[in-house]
Amino acid sequence: MAIDLEYSVVGKRVPRLDGLKKVTGRPIYTGDIELPGMLHAVLVRSPHPHARIVRVDKRRAERVPGVVAVVSGADILNTPGIDPWVGPVFKDQGILALDKARHIGDPVAAVVAESREAAEEARELVEVEYEPLPAVFDPVEACKPGAPLVHEVLRPSRAFADMAHVGETGGTNVCYHQKVRKGDVEAAFARADYIFEDTFTSPPAQHAPLEPHVTLAYIDDDDRITLWTATQSPSFVRVSTAGIFGVPLNRVRVIVPYLGAGYGSKLYAKLEPIAAYLAYVTRRPVRIMLSRSEEFHIITKHQVVARYKLGVTKHGDIVAVEAQNWWNTGAYAEIGPRVVHKSGYTSAGPYKFPNVKIDSYCVYTNNVPAGAFRGFGVPQVVWAYESMMDTAAHALGIDPLEFRLRHALDEGDEFATGTPMLSIGVKPALRKVAEAIDYTPPQPKRVPPGSGRVRGKAVACGVKAVLTPSISSAVVEMNADGSVTVLSSTVEMGQGSETALAQIAAEELGVPITKVRVHLPDTDVTPYDTITAGSRSTYHMGNAIRGAAKQIRDQLFAAAAEVLEANPEDLVLRDERVYVRGAEERGLTIPQVFAAKLGALGTTLVGEHVFKTIADPLDHETGQSKKSTEFWFSGATAAEVEVDTDTGQVQVLKFVAAADVGREVNPHHCEQQIAGATILTLGLTFFEWMNVEQGQVTNASFLEYQLPSLKDVPPQLESVSVTVPHPDGPFGAKGVGESGTLSVQPTIANAIYNACGVRIRDLPITPEKVLRALHERDREHGAEVEPPAVQQPPATENVGATDVPG
Amino acid sequence: MAIDLEYSVVGKRVPRLDGLKKVTGRPIYTGDIELPGMLHAVLVRSPHPHARIVRVDKRRAERVPGVVAVVSGADILNTPGIDPWVGPVFKDQGILALDKARHIGDPVAAVVAESREAAEEARELVEVEYEPLPAVFDPVEACKPGAPLVHEVLRPSRAFADMAHVGETGGTNVCYHQKVRKGDVEAAFARADYIFEDTFTSPPAQHAPLEPHVTLAYIDDDDRITLWTATQSPSFVRVSTAGIFGVPLNRVRVIVPYLGAGYGSKLYAKLEPIAAYLAYVTRRPVRIMLSRSEEFHIITKHQVVARYKLGVTKHGDIVAVEAQNWWNTGAYAEIGPRVVHKSGYTSAGPYKFPNVKIDSYCVYTNNVPAGAFRGFGVPQVVWAYESMMDTAAHALGIDPLEFRLRHALDEGDEFATGTPMLSIGVKPALRKVAEAIDYTPPQPKRVPPGSGRVRGKAVACGVKAVLTPSISSAVVEMNADGSVTVLSSTVEMGQGSETALAQIAAEELGVPITKVRVHLPDTDVTPYDTITAGSRSTYHMGNAIRGAAKQIRDQLFAAAAEVLEANPEDLVLRDERVYVRGAEERGLTIPQVFAAKLGALGTTLVGEHVFKTIADPLDHETGQSKKSTEFWFSGATAAEVEVDTDTGQVQVLKFVAAADVGREVNPHHCEQQIAGATILTLGLTFFEWMNVEQGQVTNASFLEYQLPSLKDVPPQLESVSVTVPHPDGPFGAKGVGESGTLSVQPTIANAIYNACGVRIRDLPITPEKVLRALHERDREHGAEVEPPAVQQPPATENVGATDVPG
Repeated sequence: MAIDLEYSVVGKRVPRLDGLKKVTGRPIYTGDIELPGMLHAVLVRSPHPHARIVRVDKRRAERVPGVVAVVSGADILNTPGIDPWVGPVFKDQGILALDKARHIGDPVAAVVAESREAAEEARELVEVEYEPLPAVFDPVEACKPGAPLVHEVLRPSRAFADMAHVGETGGTNVCYHQKVRKGDVEAAFARADYIFEDTFTSPPAQHAPLEPHVTLAYIDDDDRITLWTATQSPSFVRVSTAGIFGVPLNRVRVIVPYLGAGYGSKLYAKLEPIAAYLAYVTRRPVRIMLSRSEEFHIITKHQVVARYKLGVTKHGDIVAVEAQNWWNTGAYAEIGPRVVHKSGYTSAGPYKFPNVKIDSYCVYTNNVPAGAFRGFGVPQVVWAYESMMDTAAHALGIDPLEFRLRHALDEGDEFATGTPMLSIGVKPALRKVAEAIDYTPPQPKRVPPGSGRVRGKAVACGVKAVLTPSISSAVVEMNADGSVTVLSSTVEMGQGSETALAQIAAEELGVPITKVRVHLPDTDVTPYDTITAGSRSTYHMGNAIRGAAKQIRDQLFAAAAEVLEANPEDLVLRDERVYVRGAEERGLTIPQVFAAKLGALGTTLVGEHVFKTIADPLDHETGQSKKSTEFWFSGATAAEVEVDTDTGQVQVLKFVAAADVGREVNPHHCEQQIAGATILTLGLTFFEWMNVEQGQVTNASFLEYQLPSLKDVPPQLESVSVTVPHPDGPFGAKGVGESGTLSVQPTIANAIYNACGVRIRDLPITPEKVLRALHERDREHGAEVEPPAVQQPPATENVGATDVPG
Repeated sequence: MAIDLEYSVVGKRVPRLDGLKKVTGRPIYTGDIELPGMLHAVLVRSPHPHARIVRVDKRRAERVPGVVAVVSGADILNTPGIDPWVGPVFKDQGILALDKARHIGDPVAAVVAESREAAEEARELVEVEYEPLPAVFDPVEACKPGAPLVHEVLRPSRAFADMAHVGETGGTNVCYHQKVRKGDVEAAFARADYIFEDTFTSPPAQHAPLEPHVTLAYIDDDDRITLWTATQSPSFVRVSTAGIFGVPLNRVRVIVPYLGAGYGSKLYAKLEPIAAYLAYVTRRPVRIMLSRSEEFHIITKHQVVARYKLGVTKHGDIVAVEAQNWWNTGAYAEIGPRVVHKSGYTSAGPYKFPNVKIDSYCVYTNNVPAGAFRGFGVPQVVWAYESMMDTAAHALGIDPLEFRLRHALDEGDEFATGTPMLSIGVKPALRKVAEAIDYTPPQPKRVPPGSGRVRGKAVACGVKAVLTPSISSAVVEMNADGSVTVLSSTVEMGQGSETALAQIAAEELGVPITKVRVHLPDTDVTPYDTITAGSRSTYHMGNAIRGAAKQIRDQLFAAAAEVLEANPEDLVLRDERVYVRGAEERGLTIPQVFAAKLGALGTTLVGEHVFKTIADPLDHETGQSKKSTEFWFSGATAAEVEVDTDTGQVQVLKFVAAADVGREVNPHHCEQQIAGATILTLGLTFFEWMNVEQGQVTNASFLEYQLPSLKDVPPQLESVSVTVPHPDGPFGAKGVGESGTLSVQPTIANAIYNACGVRIRDLPITPEKVLRALHERDREHGAEVEPPAVQQPPATENVGATDVPG
């Protein structure tokens, strides 16, 4: 790659800037901070999935020594000047439950005390009188007429312009209905030779960041609300907090130290509203930190029921896709409507389908709220459509890889929503993983249970859109000695943003990365950034930093041009020098340029840039838009598995994941991100899920909730970066955080099918399910070949009967 | 003033933003901050004015429980990678004394312990063996051949470009010799009818800020050196600290909370080097805070011996001025050479003298170092030249006010150094104070001692140049709700910069001042500013903020112009709206403009600006320069005093001080600054001085060192703002912090002369001196009129015999 030679820092395997200090335990996380006079808060949680709060008796709790305050929703409602409702899409959640508890674990009161022990002791003494109400847990059931209403009225927030069409409404648990309409699916199905129809489910899951949710709030010496908080969205928290208290944005300060991972769980307002409120009423610093079991009651991954229908001709042309996807968003909308919107409009996958009809329903239930989770809902639909693609290919006797390549979108093709594809790497990714896995077209297999170990290989792919519109702003300061400070609100949560963004600044300013320091988010000084999520930081904040750095470079060039008697356009900034292109000896060091421009030692030059992406307005009846996303993340994965037909156990022998990153800003990071996403999703594929029974999470601890450990990493795990550069990306880069998650699950299911001929439709793929599927298939069909294709089967309405976990 | 109507915030009596919180005791000062594991450091100080350090025995001290480290200069010299020498002009001062102790109180060792008590106990047990050396204390004596050398070699620092001609030298105590040469003084004196010659002295004094010097240093979790410190020059401290440790500038962070006053005492590196070093070696937070008596041993106001010679014709034309000024800069140069340079080139005062020869000597002695002090040395020379002007006027029988007005510089006249005057308010200031005091030309009086109380009125004036070149940089962030954050390294030390700078930002951005917040200095985020000193912040930082705000305004106008279908040039930003000039209804609120430009809530726009002033290079042999200063501060004062000829007691009945502020950004602040400067200088006029005997300060406590209290404020005290706008000042403003100090002292001396006919030449003007002068004059001259003019007296060389305090 000759082009790489142009760059000094970008594209290099630079060690993480935060690596040494993190492995030596030096960084200070939010939970490490103690302020003089700091209080500890704990939450009193509802034992009911749905209940009216009749009365909160605080008297016994208040008498516990050390208790400073006990606060209920009623107290918040009675505090003048406070807007008690929060939420990024609907303002549907109280700072504490205000009228009803809507899920088991819903906070109904808070206890603040001098010590956590005193607060916990008092928590047990808060007496809450509830009037239990009928509850609903299943998203399909919740859509039916007569289902208990989780919210009587829906109040849209103003935070997201592209959700503005969601008006105030009520009388339903469907808080958002997203539609994609393209062509005429009815007519297309009528002329299809085969129609494949199936339902796939994904269970709720936990993000399980190492660091729990924690916020420390205090009123500073200028009477401002200051929050040290474990959040992925400092700018959002500032807006939200200013809104609660009705103060200007600069009267709220949000500081985010290193984050001990997020995976989407720490977006928007979580503990911040209650922490700020408690600091406001006690006038003391208040820390609130969740226990591990509480973590299971704050936010989850969406449980999804996805029903897909594919119409195919006998020549293998796919003529139509229709889908209905029910998203269990739990008790509060949180960011659920946007998850549904985003995943909804990519639910047709990276394929050239001429006719599409997809309905995605975001449904309130009396479960723990569901929000963003690495992949932002897309893995749940890829699970469905990539299982369907395999099913169809097998039925038609077409190699599933060839089937995908034949239908996959090419550069310039229109996505199902009418957006032309730009910088799309699905096909190269598919080819790379297939090659790496030594892919050969699968042979139909029907292995009876108890046949020992059998092997299978398979591929899958997926596509995800980046959050659009969004904004990243950056300020870059260069000191006279060439050292650089980047002010950015991007949260370093382990993903390596600090290093990648420093590489971009270093490259643009011609200094070694060791001279660049990235300031952690502090809304007093780091300018607006939409969120740190959705793999958007490298592209968006990278562009913002590049733009800001360019302003500094322009100033350096203008000053150097005078001294060097050259045109600014002919100058190069590299290796801490400004010199004339092609005459490297005619140059000045950066300190010399500063001296020429400003004289004094220790001076600074500043650049700033706001990088903004825009989406074309979309038609809410059809989901059509000329530009629904700034760009696409493409991923493809391949696996070889071994199925033990005696036990149902599946072992992944080799797994290859490819992601189209545009350009590797740091190849090492890309590998780690892809591998990390793969491992996380393998856990979710095989054993990681929240078991919810009537709204009660029954495995809310790490004893019972299994996460992948080192022993779960496949013996061969390969990460592959595909680099289809984006014309507007920083040095061509797109992003990589989630691409590795997209297609892991159907890859495994497809490989199991290729190994032994059974298809698993409900995650996670436990040995029990595999074994049961082998036995059931055996019982039903004996030695016959399973009829994979069903011609015009009658539509079935009993989707609710699907094996939905929880 | 019709022009004022244009402004919403500038020119208004806005209450101080820091007022309420300061009077309610809320702000956190450096000394309030405690970090976990923080250690306390105290300094072991030399009892000798000049001595070689032979040996430091730390063993007994180290055994005191709680002591963590005892450090000597030798330890610092043995620490690899440390540059042990600091100093803004010469690198002549060790972090601790490295070879010799050069004044009584010179720190030779430091003790760090878990508590201040333990550190103080151990301090007594550090045994230092000294080899005493001959010492010199008088600045005139120190210039003579054979005087003991305080420094054997002088090492120039690189910090000040305009001092670059000071090369490495040695063998002298004169570390800087500043010259002004204009015309031919020899020839002029030869044709003068009268020559007046006299010597005036000013004693050393203490800044006495309420908050002592204090620094808290620690190594942060990224291995960076962080300093919370009471400094007026955060940017300088960053450069200096980075230099000591040889690290890039962004590996040092300097944070300055509100400062409990400075008056010049907290400039450059004071406790920061030793605090940083101790944190570096102990790897723990270290706080060092001076006791009040130690405050007397860190920095002082320059003692000055000023010998002036004025040649005048019988018509009252001044044909020549010659002066020799000896500045006692003490044991280390500190900023002394710049004080001497700055005061040296203004030593001819605001007058049209055709022939000038001034020599200013910055002289090392074995006293406590002298540095910046409100007025930066100018009051010491105004004391001399304004006494001389009065002497000459009286001798010629000319009204001293008329004499001054006749010779004072007008707009466009050349200053003694060749710089044309721009925006010069001396004459209006003189006229205003004369009017306010109900001035009448004085009649010669000769009142014998014991004649009871007599009254006199007088005026004086002075001029001071602003620090040039210098740089202020600012970043301004505007939030989508119109709230604003200003990032500036200007230190709020009680002078009201926070409010004044916020007014400028508010005016420029069309928002109420309550929506503006000025971030306190933090070198990680607030860009470079030369220093907070010399009354420069309103002009320089004001211009930087104005420039940064203009960048935001331009962005708002560009976005609004599209929506409003107007030209950006036709838009106005006021009252939180952008509207078309002359059509106020065609407008958008600031949030609407943000929405149009960026969409999302809570976004930010950023502007930045570097404001830099330049001086023309000056000829070091003549001091001539086409532009030696960006602008001039002019001040004039008038007083009516009552002298008790029985006791020598002087009472100020009325005092009027006028300063040319250019424009009053905040009239209330201007009044307070002028009055505060007057009161401070009245204290220095009458009773405030450091008594130094053989290098030993004998009144190093507030029991013995008197500061003006409320009872010392004249019964009538009036502040007058003169507003000769500066074309490049923000809204015309210049500055005001020091203008009130300039001419207070000669005004009092002149008024005493007018009251009773005696002239005091040595500050402070104690009752004893007045009474002695009355008696001496009476004894020497009986009832005769004192011969005020001396024709061609022989030059006298025994200036050293002058009554120099200390």
